[in-house]
Amino acid sequence: MSAQIIDGSALAGKMKLEVTDQVKALVARGKPVHLTALLVGSTPAGELYAQRQGEACRAVGINYQLLKYPAEIAQRELKREIRRLNVDPSVTGIMMHLPLPGHLDHPRLQYEIDVVKDVEGVNPANIGYVVYGHTLIAPCTALAVIELIKSTGVEIAGAEAVVVGASEIAGKPIALLLAEQMATVTLCHIKTRDVSVHTRRADIVVVAVGKPHLLNGTQIKEGSVVIDVGINRVTAADGTKRTVGDVEFESAREKAGLITPVPGGVGPMTVAMLLRNTVRSALILESAS
Amino acid sequence: MSAQIIDGSALAGKMKLEVTDQVKALVARGKPVHLTALLVGSTPAGELYAQRQGEACRAVGINYQLLKYPAEIAQRELKREIRRLNVDPSVTGIMMHLPLPGHLDHPRLQYEIDVVKDVEGVNPANIGYVVYGHTLIAPCTALAVIELIKSTGVEIAGAEAVVVGASEIAGKPIALLLAEQMATVTLCHIKTRDVSVHTRRADIVVVAVGKPHLLNGTQIKEGSVVIDVGINRVTAADGTKRTVGDVEFESAREKAGLITPVPGGVGPMTVAMLLRNTVRSALILESAS
Repeated sequence: MSAQIIDGSALAGKMKLEVTDQVKALVARGKPVHLTALLVGSTPAGELYAQRQGEACRAVGINYQLLKYPAEIAQRELKREIRRLNVDPSVTGIMMHLPLPGHLDHPRLQYEIDVVKDVEGVNPANIGYVVYGHTLIAPCTALAVIELIKSTGVEIAGAEAVVVGASEIAGKPIALLLAEQMATVTLCHIKTRDVSVHTRRADIVVVAVGKPHLLNGTQIKEGSVVIDVGINRVTAADGTKRTVGDVEFESAREKAGLITPVPGGVGPMTVAMLLRNTVRSALILESAS
Repeated sequence: MSAQIIDGSALAGKMKLEVTDQVKALVARGKPVHLTALLVGSTPAGELYAQRQGEACRAVGINYQLLKYPAEIAQRELKREIRRLNVDPSVTGIMMHLPLPGHLDHPRLQYEIDVVKDVEGVNPANIGYVVYGHTLIAPCTALAVIELIKSTGVEIAGAEAVVVGASEIAGKPIALLLAEQMATVTLCHIKTRDVSVHTRRADIVVVAVGKPHLLNGTQIKEGSVVIDVGINRVTAADGTKRTVGDVEFESAREKAGLITPVPGGVGPMTVAMLLRNTVRSALILESAS
């Protein structure tokens, strides 16, 4: 039996339509939605990513402004920029492209972003609110994972969920949101003795490591839900490049009940969640004004 | 074979000596350590708890001031009080006794406490910094659990750790600190299908539910480390009252390798961690001044 594919692109498309309507309504009320992104130290990949983000924003009616800073910018100076944007009433959302140059302390900078304007949900306080079950703005990738699972109709409460990868921006927030949804959550990582022991007993497996073929069909339970957060560029023997996830898709789909593809799974949904968060920030700001 | 008892009182006593020395050194440098506690709506239990906390502080040389507010105080007014204490240079630590009356939103109030003066580590931002692995001030109970495990010499990295109870102030921060120490962590709660399946495979079991006899010896692995966070007052058939944990101590000690007693385990260590955090806050403030 072959797993049903969870179509992240289609779900993202549906969410973007909702976002478009919400943005329109805000604009009609004289409250345009405006996301300002900070890019420190330009790289071609960073520029391309920011450019695509800008296109995604404009497609749903969100104004997108990219502010570029030299790689040598001081922590204090960047902090001052964030504070300026925090109090600028025309800016409804703020995000900072990562990675930052090594001399900058990104959690401390993310802490400076106004909790409501923090559209990526990366201010430590927003992470803490998730722990408290008082979520204001949650991290986009983690939201994408939850929405993809919910779209399948599979019950999260009481399910055995295993998250492979304990990064601060993916694995840990994913584990927290799954726990908030009342899954029994196991967080595995590089020090886990045998990841397969856990993934084989899981109803829901989320893999967020960034390593191609980390998990294959023999390591998952029959009929489980597999969410692949990995986005890896690999080069085939003939020199062609393609994007693959952390899961060996072909073997996993034979065993899983539901599985996200890469590309077309978590990726487009993460972008959609950023747009949804951006509208959410604008709506919270409007209700507070 | 009977488990070795992890003596929380003895460990707490040792830590209080260290704290006493640090406070003395700060005082000698003209930097007295001063903890201000907020108590909203007086109850006999709340008053008693605050009184004991004051005694614990004074015993190590920390000034303790208790500010009492009527149960009807408005969120805005309490926020203003916290902000006043944040900028008062004589106050090095701030904590707010819980529970608060129902009309107050405690995570939002805890968010107002200056991240450095937040000696309980309950500001959502401090919880978020733990998720980021950038811990500034961590929650006391979670720190107590980690210190008790470390005191045994048992390796946390790579261990299978199971936390029973997913509360915001105990279970979740404990799970996060265990993950920070590179344990493979499973978080169980009221919706977990069969907690025993997890506790029986755990090298380290932490129980933080607040329910007597929740876990017994048949539900744990031979030789495991058992940390009992529960503090429950129970009345025996003859009317006498005593304090017990969440673990059925007598059966669990026959199976476990190491176990904390109640009382005398996590309780005294949590108080010691509050004192240690209070000194830590004062030291961070000093280094920033």
